[in-house]
Formats: sequence, structure tokens, C-alpha cells
Amino acid sequence: MTEDIRGFAGVDPRTGRDVERIGAETSPADLDDLCARAAVAARELAGLARAGRARLLRSMARSLEERRADLVAVADRETALGEQRLNGELTRTCYQLEVFAEVAEDGAYLEATIDHAGETPMGPRPDLRRMLVPLGPVAVFGASNFPFAFSVPGGDTASALSAGCPVIAKVHEAHPATSVLSHEALVAGARAAGVTPDVINLVWGREAGVGLVGHPAVQAVGFTGSLGAGRTLFDVASSRPSPIPFYGELGALNTLVVCPEAAASRGEEIAAGLAASFTLGVGQFCTKPGMALLPTGAHGEAIRRSLAEHVGALPTGFMLSERTADAYRRGVETLRGMDGVRTLAGGKETGEGGGWTGTPLLLHADAGAVTGALLEECFGPVLVTVEYTSEEHLLRLLETFGPALTGTVHADAADGDLSARLLAQLSGTVGRVVWNGFPTGVAVAWGMHHGGPYPATTSALHTSVGTTAIRRWLRPISLQNVPQDLLPDELRDAPAASTGLVRRVDGVLSHSE
Amino acid sequence: MTEDIRGFAGVDPRTGRDVERIGAETSPADLDDLCARAAVAARELAGLARAGRARLLRSMARSLEERRADLVAVADRETALGEQRLNGELTRTCYQLEVFAEVAEDGAYLEATIDHAGETPMGPRPDLRRMLVPLGPVAVFGASNFPFAFSVPGGDTASALSAGCPVIAKVHEAHPATSVLSHEALVAGARAAGVTPDVINLVWGREAGVGLVGHPAVQAVGFTGSLGAGRTLFDVASSRPSPIPFYGELGALNTLVVCPEAAASRGEEIAAGLAASFTLGVGQFCTKPGMALLPTGAHGEAIRRSLAEHVGALPTGFMLSERTADAYRRGVETLRGMDGVRTLAGGKETGEGGGWTGTPLLLHADAGAVTGALLEECFGPVLVTVEYTSEEHLLRLLETFGPALTGTVHADAADGDLSARLLAQLSGTVGRVVWNGFPTGVAVAWGMHHGGPYPATTSALHTSVGTTAIRRWLRPISLQNVPQDLLPDELRDAPAASTGLVRRVDGVLSHSE
Repeated sequence: MTEDIRGFAGVDPRTGRDVERIGAETSPADLDDLCARAAVAARELAGLARAGRARLLRSMARSLEERRADLVAVADRETALGEQRLNGELTRTCYQLEVFAEVAEDGAYLEATIDHAGETPMGPRPDLRRMLVPLGPVAVFGASNFPFAFSVPGGDTASALSAGCPVIAKVHEAHPATSVLSHEALVAGARAAGVTPDVINLVWGREAGVGLVGHPAVQAVGFTGSLGAGRTLFDVASSRPSPIPFYGELGALNTLVVCPEAAASRGEEIAAGLAASFTLGVGQFCTKPGMALLPTGAHGEAIRRSLAEHVGALPTGFMLSERTADAYRRGVETLRGMDGVRTLAGGKETGEGGGWTGTPLLLHADAGAVTGALLEECFGPVLVTVEYTSEEHLLRLLETFGPALTGTVHADAADGDLSARLLAQLSGTVGRVVWNGFPTGVAVAWGMHHGGPYPATTSALHTSVGTTAIRRWLRPISLQNVPQDLLPDELRDAPAASTGLVRRVDGVLSHSE
Repeated sequence: MTEDIRGFAGVDPRTGRDVERIGAETSPADLDDLCARAAVAARELAGLARAGRARLLRSMARSLEERRADLVAVADRETALGEQRLNGELTRTCYQLEVFAEVAEDGAYLEATIDHAGETPMGPRPDLRRMLVPLGPVAVFGASNFPFAFSVPGGDTASALSAGCPVIAKVHEAHPATSVLSHEALVAGARAAGVTPDVINLVWGREAGVGLVGHPAVQAVGFTGSLGAGRTLFDVASSRPSPIPFYGELGALNTLVVCPEAAASRGEEIAAGLAASFTLGVGQFCTKPGMALLPTGAHGEAIRRSLAEHVGALPTGFMLSERTADAYRRGVETLRGMDGVRTLAGGKETGEGGGWTGTPLLLHADAGAVTGALLEECFGPVLVTVEYTSEEHLLRLLETFGPALTGTVHADAADGDLSARLLAQLSGTVGRVVWNGFPTGVAVAWGMHHGGPYPATTSALHTSVGTTAIRRWLRPISLQNVPQDLLPDELRDAPAASTGLVRRVDGVLSHSE
């Protein structure tokens, strides 16, 4: 841990040494002040029409883009993720802001609904108009493994601002300098769009983070991180005098199944893809496949052998922080110490060491040994293979795994009915089913769901990636018999600025004229 | 309290005497069994296509209709709500089932989304298809004041079944015989539709209710009732090893504002409507207006005088249960004992008494005295009037009231800018703003929102009335690169049974062909 009362260090994972000290724990008085300013900003942001919020988001994206070189350099020094990955992640971050500008302009997220007064089987009904409105100030807790895309300028921030909710972001101790630079970029973007900089603010330190979740001005929380920290903050949010929604994305085991015929026809290709997927970014993805169920016999054995070759050839990498590297080391020790678990490849340090390293590791577990730690996520580049002996055995095994962000199936047409059975079973427990692919890589799209039942997330109803992430920051209101001139534009019979908006009018979905 | 270890009494509020003993506390073993059966029923219900669930709901509505005379007679004996009101409520209950059959057929609630594989600024994107799927078994806790529409056969049950979620309903001790009869009707409806009766089951007793909320098989809870009981169960749901959403509708103060010009032009009409609204059903509505803000001067004074005349002429009524009547008596005592509060009319028992009576009461409070109990709901036929001296004073007063299910404004065009300011302020804190009307009466419609921020409900994002109530029982999944023949019909490029379904395909909302 690098937190102390004097401030927060930016640390280089490649050396483990502090680079600089920036920021200090936010005091309770400062937190109150930030929250009060966010409450004022909420009124300004809600008052901007959707077009105004779209302009704000695009201005922020431009501002990040202008600071690309600095942002990537600082983030690389703090996370060791590498310039290529970080450039890609920053591109994604800007793209997310652009997408949520489009979501605001599209406006269907408002669920605008008009029921004109009329007769029903229940008697006369008044004029009723419903739409979604912003919840108010939102707290965002970013992730160590995505210093841009799931942190200060990330998807939670983009979707909250799009909805009309100001953001107070807790600085992640694994990338404080990146957070400060990102914040400066977003503030510059807000100023360029003529919007108050208080739409985005930062708080520092663990206590201030807990205080933020408990603060009466805060109306919802977005969180990406570990199950332990997420559950602690969920409990704070739920036990407030006024409970608020807590959207925690907590990671998962992410089981991958290879069906017999797929193993026979393209085992080599699956092994190569799987090895790349579970070691991508030194295994530091919440969608990392952590468990592979392989068929018994020669084809499953060939996949394991191929996986072992790939893993044996991979170098040790640098992990995000001391805490991450320690947790990986301890997690791997636990797995290797379990009865019925043996090492197939990897796990030996390569290179010079010195920083916070993590080494790819391939384990195999007897099917009967799959309990305890083998059912939980181990964050880092480790994959466990298990052998199934029949379709029934495979489906029983799958039942022992809890909910997850993803479940992956490799199946050929020749695998027959097994495909449908696997799809049905996985659909009941995971947020996204991946077919003949790999779960790492979460597209920002209308059709994306990045979530799942607990403990994958703390709210099975919502996603943290994709356009529908905006729904987390909105609540409905109905306006009954309110005169036309007082209605929000989107709910008027003849809207002025909302041409083409999809609304449900007297029960029928249509585009406004 | 009529609960004891021997069973549950059906009691007559007009006499306070037990009529019969029916039902016994559900044992933990029986609860396990019910939950296991609900989990099996969940698979059957999810497997019914939307058309099958629509048939189920309509069959249940018919079955209730066939038992109308018995249902109304038993409910009247248990609740003293009167045959006219209960006939109307049963009509509404059947209508709700019909409406949720239409919602299932409409299918837009699925939010079906198709993103074909393609290029994006982020590189190639896989084929992604998203829709909502049922959460699984749901617990329903009905309300004392609506033995049909918000109880065993009510809106929570209708929306959950429409979504594909089986229901386990906790029997309300204020109407056990009504619950049993309603359950029999729903089961008969299920059988007639060829669906397992385990889509709806009952549990009895407080401990079994708590056990139900904590049961691993239960995936969400719908609750209508008091803040105290609701918060207790919310805490149980949130502190489970696997937390689940708890949708509690907890009632509210429901402030009503009369603007100066409206008071001048139609004070008499407003007074008559308000007196009828707050005493409707002996004031036992969660949308009962409990606080009226009137302008200072002659027009406000005339409204108070008129209200007092109406209230003075109203008889004592019978309340739903001993607990309700006791709570009303205690609540009224507290209000009348506060400094700055005086009685304008009512509060004296009329009629023979003997049962659980509640007497309409009109109070006036000095604006400076509006604190504590005056800011909280008092369930029953009591209204407090407060005088405001200026627009600024009115808006400051409004700020002191917490979130609520509704806020009502009576305003004329001549009230000018005040209307917009009131609408903006109320939109920030209530679920439904009623204009020149009264909040009692909650239409079942696409445009209805019956909810609001805590403590009006435990989930500001959702409604318990209206078609969007279905969203509470659903979670999204994404299917990535899944072959066409394995996809649910609604997500296929060319659906077979989903003609006309509204979907978002490659970003554009359209009807499927």
C-alpha cells in the first residue's frame, strides 16, 4: 500500500519505486464542499439540453486526444501496461465519450411516453407523460487495470454525464498522476464547452471514498474492482439512511468450454487463442477466462499440450501494483497447494525481476477437486484446465460454477444438441455468452452487456459497458395533466428540438415528427 | 396482532372479532420446498414463449372474474373496504393481468438489440445480440390496503409472471382468506392454461417472510407497505451473501400546493376535491395527500374553511386492521400534541364504534412548526394545511419535504412563472407530478410511474404500477457470435414468431418483419 497521511505516490511497477508524491487525503470538509458543488452542477447539467450534453462529451474527448502523448506516458509509468495497449485504451475512452454523445442525441434512453387522456376499461384516465430524469451526483470508483477506460474519464463517467449526472471520482492509488492528468483534460473539455468544471471532481484516499459513498448528496455509485472492496462499499451504500444504488463490477471466473467435436476439428487454434486471451495484459482483465473445461481423450490432451507450449514460451510480465502482484502470488500458491491440482506449464520467473512481476501459469485440476479457490477468480495470468468425461458430466460441472461476467463455448455443428444445452445453462448464470471466441475484449456497442448476477456484479439488472449503461443514472417521473408549455420538450405533443425521437404515444412506439 | 403459532385469523374490522382460523406459519422445510418448486417453475415459465405467458395471464384474469362474488365478499369481511370499492379493485386487478399480457405480446420490454459484426473506430466488432431475460423466482409482499390490486393477484405478480418469473407471495395477515381464495383462482387459471401451479405459491407468517427474502432461490422482492417493515426487509435482501434487488413502495407525505391565482379562481372546487382525496378509502392510500400548502390571505382561508366543512360532515370509517387503526390514532395524537398545530375540523368519533375506526381530521400547522412528524406520512384520513406568505417562502417550505410518490400543484395560467419553478422543484424529488388534480388514483398505463426516491421507495429506478414495472424482474444478457439456429426467436435476423417486434438493429430502432 502506498497510501499514507502525507499523500499519494505515483509508483513505477517496473521498479517498485515511488516516482513522485501528488495529492492528499480529501478532508471531510473538502468532501462536503465537492458534493455541494456537484449538487449545483447537477442542476446546470440537467438544464443543458441533450444536445448540450453531447457537445460537452465531444469536447472532453477532444481534450483527452490533445493530451494523448502525456496521458499515455504517465499511465505507462504508473501501470506498466505498455504504450501500445494504453494508446488503444485511450482511443477507446474517447470513443466511449463520442458514443455517449450519440446516446444523448438519440434520446430513446429517455423512454419518453405519452398517454393522452382517454377512456379505459377502468374508466377515464388523465393525460400521463413519463420520461427518465438524472438521479443527481454520482460517485465513480475506477479500476487499477484500465487507467483510462474504467477510471476517471471512463465509461461510468461518460454514461453519467450523458445522463445529466455530475461525477465525483475516487482517485485509484495505482494511477494517481494519470487520474490528475485525465481530470485536467476533462475540466478543460468542460470549459471549452462552456460548462462548469464541477461536472467532474476528484477525491483522494480510502476514508474519503467511504465518505463519498455515504454522502447524502451522492445518488448512485459506479465501481469496478475486487469483490472484497466492492462488497464493502455496496454495504455502505445499502446501509445509508437513504440507500442508493451501487453498481459494482467485481470480476469473475469466466469459464470456457470446448465441446468434443470442436476440440477434434480445431484444438490447436483454440489453444492458441485461449493462451493469448488468458495472458493478455498479464491476465489483468475481469473477463479473463480462468477455467477451461476440455473433453477427455486425445483431443483434450492435445489442447492442454498446446496450451502448455504457448504458456512455456511467454515471459514474466509486470503487474499493475504491489497489491495486485502479491494477491496473484498468494492466489497461485493456494491453487498449487490444493489436492488434485498440478502444474502443466509456466510459473517460473523470467527476466530481471525487481518490479512487481506476474508469471503466466497453466494448471490442471481433477474434476473432483473443483471446489473452494478453484471456483473463484484469481486475478492474473493463470488458467486451470479440467477434463470432463461426458455431456452430463460437463453440464454438472458447469452447475458448480457461480454467476460470471462471461461464459464461452467452442462448439462445432457436429456437437449437436450439446450446444443448445450449454447456451441455455450459461444464459441462466452469465452476462455474456461468447461463441467460438474468447471473452477478453468488451465492445462498446448497443448490444453489449457487461454484467451478470452477483458476485459478477452487485446489480444484475445493469451493465457497465455499452450504451445501456446510461440507465444506471436515471429514474422515471410521470407528469399528469401538466400543460404543454410547461412540459420538457421531449414530452410535448409537438416537440421543438426533439425531431425523430422514439417515443411511445398512446401505446405505440414511433418517431416524433 | 393476530399472528400466533396456531395459525392466522381472518378478522372483521367492523367488529374486531376473529372470523376463522386459516393457514399456519410456513416451516423452514416447507419454505425450501416451495422455493425448489419455484426454481423448477422458473424454467417452465421462461420456456413458454411470450405468447404462452400472455395466455397464462389472461387465463388467470378469467379465473378471478369467475370467482368475483366470493372474492369481494371475503375481502369485504376482512378489510371493510366496501363492496363497491372492492369490485372496482378486482376489475383493476384483472385489467392489470390483461395489460401485462399485452406487454408480453408487445415484446419491446425485451430491449432486443442486434449489432451485426462489422468495423468500428475501435477495430472489428463481433456479432452482438442483447435482450432481457427473467431473473428467476420472485417474492411478493402485498399491502393491507389493496387486498387484490397490490396483493397476491396484484401488479407485482402480474408483472413478474409476464417477465417469466414465478411468484412466492407472503400472505398479509390483514386478509388471509382473501389471499387463499385469490391464490386458488390464480392456480385454477394456470391449470386451465396448461401451466404448472407452482408459478404462484403462498407462504405464511413473519419468520417465513424473512426467510423467503433471504432464500438463495429468490432473485428479487416486490413489497408494498410501511417504511419500517420495508426497510427491515430491504436490509435482509441487501445483506444476503448474494444481495438481490428489493423493490419496496413505502408511501409518502404527498404534498399538494395551491397557487395564489388558483386559490382565488377555484378555491371551493379544490377544497371539495382535496377533502374527497385525502379521506378516500378512510385515507388508506399511499398516494393520499397529507400536506396542503395554501396561500396566505382570504383565498387560502376560504379553502381551509371549505375543507373544514367537508371534513366535519364526514363519518368515522373502519380501518383495515387493528394495527392500522392503532397507528393512525397514535400518529394523530403526536401531530395534535405538536407546538403550532391546531385542529380545524373532525377527529371526533361518530357512529357506533366497536371495530377499528378512523375519523377524518383536518389540522393546521404554523409554517415554522413544520418539522419531525409533520414531515412524515400519517397513514389514515388526516390532512395538515400550512400557509405560505410568498413564492420564495413556498419554495423554501417545499424544500423541507423529502422525496415522495407524488407532488400536486393547483395553478392557473395567471400564476405565471411560479408554475415552472414548482414543476422543476417537484420533478427533482417526487415520482409523479399531478397538475390541477389529486394524487389518489394511479392509472395502469404505459405512462404511469408509481415510485420515487427513498423513502418513497427503496429503488428510485423502478415503478410498481404501469407497464414498465416488468423491468424489475429482468436482467440483460449478450450473445456473442451465437449461430442463428441457437438464438432466441427475438434475436434472429429473421424471427419466426416475433413479427412486428421493436428492436434496435445496428443502432436503429425498427419493427421486425
